Amino acid sequence: MPRTQRKAVQSRYHHGALREALLGAGRALLEEGGPRALSLREIARRVGVSAPSAYHHFASLDAIAIALAEQGFTELVQALDAATPAATGLLTPAGEAYIAFARANPGLYRLMFGDGFLAASTASAAVGALRKRAYERVESNLQKRLAATHVPTAALFLWALTHGLALLIIDGQLNSSRDPQAMIRQVFQMAGTGIPRPA
Amino acid sequence: MPRTQRKAVQSRYHHGALREALLGAGRALLEEGGPRALSLREIARRVGVSAPSAYHHFASLDAIAIALAEQGFTELVQALDAATPAATGLLTPAGEAYIAFARANPGLYRLMFGDGFLAASTASAAVGALRKRAYERVESNLQKRLAATHVPTAALFLWALTHGLALLIIDGQLNSSRDPQAMIRQVFQMAGTGIPRPA
Repeated sequence: MPRTQRKAVQSRYHHGALREALLGAGRALLEEGGPRALSLREIARRVGVSAPSAYHHFASLDAIAIALAEQGFTELVQALDAATPAATGLLTPAGEAYIAFARANPGLYRLMFGDGFLAASTASAAVGALRKRAYERVESNLQKRLAATHVPTAALFLWALTHGLALLIIDGQLNSSRDPQAMIRQVFQMAGTGIPRPA
Repeated sequence: MPRTQRKAVQSRYHHGALREALLGAGRALLEEGGPRALSLREIARRVGVSAPSAYHHFASLDAIAIALAEQGFTELVQALDAATPAATGLLTPAGEAYIAFARANPGLYRLMFGDGFLAASTASAAVGALRKRAYERVESNLQKRLAATHVPTAALFLWALTHGLALLIIDGQLNSSRDPQAMIRQVFQMAGTGIPRPA
């Protein structure tokens, strides 16, 4: 895009709107090519602004990656809250909502868990704090239902199961001859009952 | 290394030994820097052979990555077989062996599940077949214990739980104030009993 045309596009955005547009383009890239496809230059190009304009909002690729992960964790927590039934004792709706989020946003989900160029910054304090907040949401939901002594193990058990299932599904590891929705439901039901005892 | 010296080093290896040495150097790189640190040139440098000698054994980076994944899956299946008790009905030993493998080989474990530059070739038929073989091992162990109708869900449940727990641990996501070994055991015990019912 020529400089004059780019300036015209740039002036269409007020501060917050350009930031949102950059994040939106970043999410599209994530879903097209996974975390490694993220590029601040390509994001700027898609939004129709200069690279320096993009750098004004995000000083580095890590900065936009962390902002995208933050958006992802915020939406994930909202989805869990919306699905968590009022003390019905059912685990399945929240588990299904978590998996649905990962299936709808596989590139973003991988980024949130440090895949891609972020590997080095998995230890990033910002992303770490976001994951901790999502985990505490799981713990506080369990606290309403279980004796306090069971909560830490139950929270880790549920998180490991859900994270593992989400990754196996978005990595295409499920036996494709079965209905994924039915499989997901059966797995979460087994989280409540345990693996059947030998006959 | 000068060419003459390199030739001397090269002549020290017979065919199979050089292949093993290249794989060994690849594993060291994986554990130092994760899947993205793999480089055929660096592997050759560490073993002290020319890049063309390395290419003679592995035509591409994908080829050595797949050979490393194959080594990993073979060792993982061996570890599971060694830990699987003779029909005691306990899940924990195999689960613990799986997690121990991932903790001892985090870079290799990530590679086996398609992390890193392999993302594009996660769909690789070779790696897919290896994972399928490991999965069938889980299913055949469960077939000895459970009614056939329960096996597919129980296998997916166990695999998701174990894969998720392994990744959370090697990603450093566990609450570090707790004893990891005890936590792992409690999580696998909960796989047998299910999450406690609300009081």
